[in-house]
Amino acid sequence: MSDLWLASLITDTPQAGFDLAITMSRKGVRYTQPDVEVLKKLRPVYAEDADALIASSQVIAINFQTIAAANNYWRK
Amino acid sequence: MSDLWLASLITDTPQAGFDLAITMSRKGVRYTQPDVEVLKKLRPVYAEDADALIASSQVIAINFQTIAAANNYWRK
Amino acid sequence: MSDLWLASLITDTPQAGFDLAITMSRKGVRYTQPDVEVLKKLRPVYAEDADALIASSQVIAINFQTIAAANNYWRK
Amino acid sequence: MSDLWLASLITDTPQAGFDLAITMSRKGVRYTQPDVEVLKKLRPVYAEDADALIASSQVIAINFQTIAAANNYWRK
Amino acid sequence: MSDLWLASLITDTPQAGFDLAITMSRKGVRYTQPDVEVLKKLRPVYAEDADALIASSQVIAINFQTIAAANNYWRK
Amino acid sequence: MSDLWLASLITDTPQAGFDLAITMSRKGVRYTQPDVEVLKKLRPVYAEDADALIASSQVIAINFQTIAAANNYWRK
Repeated sequence: MSDLWLASLITDTPQAGFDLAITMSRKGVRYTQPDVEVLKKLRPVYAEDADALIASSQVIAINFQTIAAANNYWRK
Repeated sequence: MSDLWLASLITDTPQAGFDLAITMSRKGVRYTQPDVEVLKKLRPVYAEDADALIASSQVIAINFQTIAAANNYWRK
Repeated sequence: MSDLWLASLITDTPQAGFDLAITMSRKGVRYTQPDVEVLKKLRPVYAEDADALIASSQVIAINFQTIAAANNYWRK
Repeated sequence: MSDLWLASLITDTPQAGFDLAITMSRKGVRYTQPDVEVLKKLRPVYAEDADALIASSQVIAINFQTIAAANNYWRK
Repeated sequence: MSDLWLASLITDTPQAGFDLAITMSRKGVRYTQPDVEVLKKLRPVYAEDADALIASSQVIAINFQTIAAANNYWRK
Repeated sequence: MSDLWLASLITDTPQAGFDLAITMSRKGVRYTQPDVEVLKKLRPVYAEDADALIASSQVIAINFQTIAAANNYWRK
């Protein structure tokens, strides 16, 4: 995972920032478990587990806080 | 989910900001589990589980932090 | 729940801000489970569960962070 | 619990701020479970449960963030 | 625990700040369970429990946020 | 672990900041469980546990918040 995937925290819109927050949340998982095959096997399990879904949404929310601040909340 | 749902973090009132925080929290879940049928099946289970309800409230609280800051806390 | 319950984040005192943080934390639960009867049934269970009590206190703490910032920490 | 317990977030020292963070964390629990007898019964259980102890420390950390910011980090 | 252990949030280096974050995280546990013998008994259990280790790292991360802000991120 | 591993929070790029957030998250674990052999034994277990992976991603997200703020979000 030495390729460039996080060149900037700046995005054009809040929604693009939310998408970036999702990417960051997934990357956080991938750094701990780099084996894509294992992740694929886990997905159907946690994607039907409400607790895991809520926890995933929380990680996205935390990463979005960072991105939103970086973009000065996309205020004009 | 490529349609526009997060055009701005700015809301007229704190309560509208809280509503947006709820939308963001749900979107965070949906990006992980896009199948609405699965989500519908999960809802009656976690909606009667105190831990899941408290966890949901926490995600909303984190998203509301971001929105409140974006709106400069709706101070006049 | 379309009635107005969050008109402002500004409170006269820190303690009133803490009370508002509790209200927000409960509202976060209610948006996910709007049925008051279900909530009433859950309360005796989680109110005797240390983990749930600590988790509730955490949601209050997060909401209080937002309110305290909004009030500029009630500094004179 | 209508008596005054949170008159100010300002403390003389960081350690007094930490003490206040503990008080706030406990109050968050108490608002959800006001019955002191129940809390007394729970204490020996969660005080020997590592997960609950770590979670308690986390709530204190979050409340301390607020208090430290309020005190401008006690910088001279 | 009335002795002075948190005289200041200011440290010379980021790493000293990280060490202080660890101290604060442990103190948060100790305020809830002051009996050192109990803590000693718990340690071998949670120190081999991945969830508890990750949760501990999270508390340290939250306390470090506070300390880093207090030190203006040790920017020159 | 008295050697220097956190000399600065400043990084050249957001991605280098993310890498540092991972390092900090792991150090947080190591301070609680310094025995590398135990950690090696735990890894295959939690690396296949979705909840632990999401929790790890959350700790990284929190540490990244600190680093991003330290770097003024790498804004030019």
